[in-house]
Amino acid sequence: MAAVAVTMVRRLLRSGPRPGLCGAGGREPGAAPRRAIGHGRVAVELDSSAGVAVMKMENLPVNSLSLDFLTEFLISLEKLENDRGCRGVILTSGAPKIFSAGLDIMEMYRKSTEHYAEFWKTVQEMWLRLYQSNMVTIAAINGSSPAGGCLMAMCCDYRIMAENPKYSIGLNETQLGIVAPFWFKDTMVNTIGNRATERSLELGLLYSPPEAHKIGLVDQLVPEEKIQSTAAAVMSQWLAIPDHARQITKSMMRKPTVDRLLAHRESDIQNFVSFITKDAIQKSLHMYMEMLKQRRG
Amino acid sequence: MAAVAVTMVRRLLRSGPRPGLCGAGGREPGAAPRRAIGHGRVAVELDSSAGVAVMKMENLPVNSLSLDFLTEFLISLEKLENDRGCRGVILTSGAPKIFSAGLDIMEMYRKSTEHYAEFWKTVQEMWLRLYQSNMVTIAAINGSSPAGGCLMAMCCDYRIMAENPKYSIGLNETQLGIVAPFWFKDTMVNTIGNRATERSLELGLLYSPPEAHKIGLVDQLVPEEKIQSTAAAVMSQWLAIPDHARQITKSMMRKPTVDRLLAHRESDIQNFVSFITKDAIQKSLHMYMEMLKQRRG
Amino acid sequence: MAAVAVTMVRRLLRSGPRPGLCGAGGREPGAAPRRAIGHGRVAVELDSSAGVAVMKMENLPVNSLSLDFLTEFLISLEKLENDRGCRGVILTSGAPKIFSAGLDIMEMYRKSTEHYAEFWKTVQEMWLRLYQSNMVTIAAINGSSPAGGCLMAMCCDYRIMAENPKYSIGLNETQLGIVAPFWFKDTMVNTIGNRATERSLELGLLYSPPEAHKIGLVDQLVPEEKIQSTAAAVMSQWLAIPDHARQITKSMMRKPTVDRLLAHRESDIQNFVSFITKDAIQKSLHMYMEMLKQRRG
Repeated sequence: MAAVAVTMVRRLLRSGPRPGLCGAGGREPGAAPRRAIGHGRVAVELDSSAGVAVMKMENLPVNSLSLDFLTEFLISLEKLENDRGCRGVILTSGAPKIFSAGLDIMEMYRKSTEHYAEFWKTVQEMWLRLYQSNMVTIAAINGSSPAGGCLMAMCCDYRIMAENPKYSIGLNETQLGIVAPFWFKDTMVNTIGNRATERSLELGLLYSPPEAHKIGLVDQLVPEEKIQSTAAAVMSQWLAIPDHARQITKSMMRKPTVDRLLAHRESDIQNFVSFITKDAIQKSLHMYMEMLKQRRG
Repeated sequence: MAAVAVTMVRRLLRSGPRPGLCGAGGREPGAAPRRAIGHGRVAVELDSSAGVAVMKMENLPVNSLSLDFLTEFLISLEKLENDRGCRGVILTSGAPKIFSAGLDIMEMYRKSTEHYAEFWKTVQEMWLRLYQSNMVTIAAINGSSPAGGCLMAMCCDYRIMAENPKYSIGLNETQLGIVAPFWFKDTMVNTIGNRATERSLELGLLYSPPEAHKIGLVDQLVPEEKIQSTAAAVMSQWLAIPDHARQITKSMMRKPTVDRLLAHRESDIQNFVSFITKDAIQKSLHMYMEMLKQRRG
Repeated sequence: MAAVAVTMVRRLLRSGPRPGLCGAGGREPGAAPRRAIGHGRVAVELDSSAGVAVMKMENLPVNSLSLDFLTEFLISLEKLENDRGCRGVILTSGAPKIFSAGLDIMEMYRKSTEHYAEFWKTVQEMWLRLYQSNMVTIAAINGSSPAGGCLMAMCCDYRIMAENPKYSIGLNETQLGIVAPFWFKDTMVNTIGNRATERSLELGLLYSPPEAHKIGLVDQLVPEEKIQSTAAAVMSQWLAIPDHARQITKSMMRKPTVDRLLAHRESDIQNFVSFITKDAIQKSLHMYMEMLKQRRG
């Protein structure tokens, strides 16, 4: 864990100073109740009077979970986690039409073994921190949310999705010829049960908002323009519960799943590295990227 | 386990003899087919011809699960369990508008460490006996059923609830700033699945009858006046199954959950004692009781 | 495992050669795209162009899972499993009105201890092979499917049932005074969740097609005449997913359940043998068979 933290700090320094990330937290007396923190790719706005932060992902165009972005996300999350003035986080997107496109394929293509390992450890870290957050976490899913984007949403305590028929959500890894790791699977089983997960993962299904709602992958659908206000209203319902009791309860529910990854964290990294370095996988990622290029072109 | 039994007998003797508890069981030849047993706070009526007992909780006003009441409940249950003439039990309430209000807060407030430990061991014992009963157990939920009352209902093989909109059911511990123990949680996960449990427990949700039915927390809703006749009709459906096969099946389904408590029974008691003796918890229980007093006044 | 294989080959030889079972597989160049394989009680038709086989159970009148039939089934399945030209299997029935009546009671009645053990090992083997098949497996349930028939259907990746109100499906063992083994239970829990399984198994419930669909025991209902075409259409959806990613995902979902039987395989056989040799069980099977005789007469 220490190694991961060191890696992150090192990466952050490498990317140069980000003014918004300094001076964060709720420690300064007399600060205005609503403050913007983190002007990078994770825009954080903390409403100190409500004790609620909005984390808006802005890694344009599609909020790909690159190593740099995940690192910034983790630092922002940790700042809020350590800020006594922040009890809840609304996770949403600043990119149009997409919540997050999931793991950045560029991080898995033609890189070094060390890079793959560092990337995967950071993906694990994102899941560990978000799934176990002591804060109330609400996903305001205002766009499509495949693969890693769906994972982020599933890590939250509550999921609200915009009922736009163009959006979809799901763990679609098999459609790309890759496999969701066991802790993605565990998180989905905890959310929608074993059978729906089995079918979802084997077919790499992406669900429309009504389908996602029906199987319990999201908790609530709202018109797109109401998603932020609904998230705020739901948040106040969750904050009515004493933090301590809610946190112990959340930990009781999620700790066994977390412990499973912690017990196999290194082998999971090795699995990822040995899978992603396979010729066949690199080839299929290449084809996938060519296809994306043509679409854009 | 022996210690618990001794404790119970001691407690019972301390509360003085209860005529209804003597001479129970179905052993006397020529006994009338319907006999009243237990004139205390658990009224038991056994229909020997059907092999079905109705256990009516009458610890007025709200069937609080006090140490004395739980002890009496356990003795009544054990008598029926050992009675070959009794194959099924309908658990219901003789109190108006409430099935059971759950654990008696008075047992958790300003008592000795020894008292807390004895109380908690008895709560565990209630769960162990009811959840593993060899008899068919049907809850006829004719009133609200928060916290420990909901647990009792979930221990049964089948749950029928009166569709009175004033009633509610759920594990609402976090609303009081306390935490449902892991075996409450396990029982709820076994009943309504992981995700619905997570949300229920974190928010301390109390469900209306239609909501409870929708998430599977109760199996059937009926008009209040039909709850006892429905319970009897459902019971005969369950009793059509050979006891031996049904009992082995029930044990197969529930034993892993039971074993989890048995493996951690002592530490669970220690957890409870160290939690409930905390100043903050005693204080919040005090405030809760003051609020109740004001409501009544 | 080796012992089982030897046993099977021995049994097959004992039943004499079956021309359809020889020359199977998709290895011969220039073979017609659609070939019939296995003219015994398991009619296999492989469409090489689609890479899909239809396995039609034809152990008339009710596709009882006898030792001989299971052995033949296993050999047919293994041939397809090893055939690179076959990526998916549709499992269906050639018997009118019934998918499979489940385990053949004759194999459990007045036989030797050795016979019981051999039979049970083969039932286990059927489950192990079908539940873990690398192929896409779709059950086209064109008739009633109690007990072992329901198990076979649950082993598949997807279940389509004819919406004929005369058909039913479920694990009804307790209705006969016997108990579904733990891996039947595990398979059902994986399919419909813990609570629905508990109720199903304790009551030995057989569900109508709409009920089975509602609780998720089957995935889709279709008019009887469309069941084969629907199965073929669904199969092509599944085959659109790269085999390798789908297979790893399937294994990830099912391996823990499989490992549980593998860890207790011998004791499970001993349990079965000691249960089935009980006088009371033999007597109740006798009565059940007399009842069946009278119905037929």
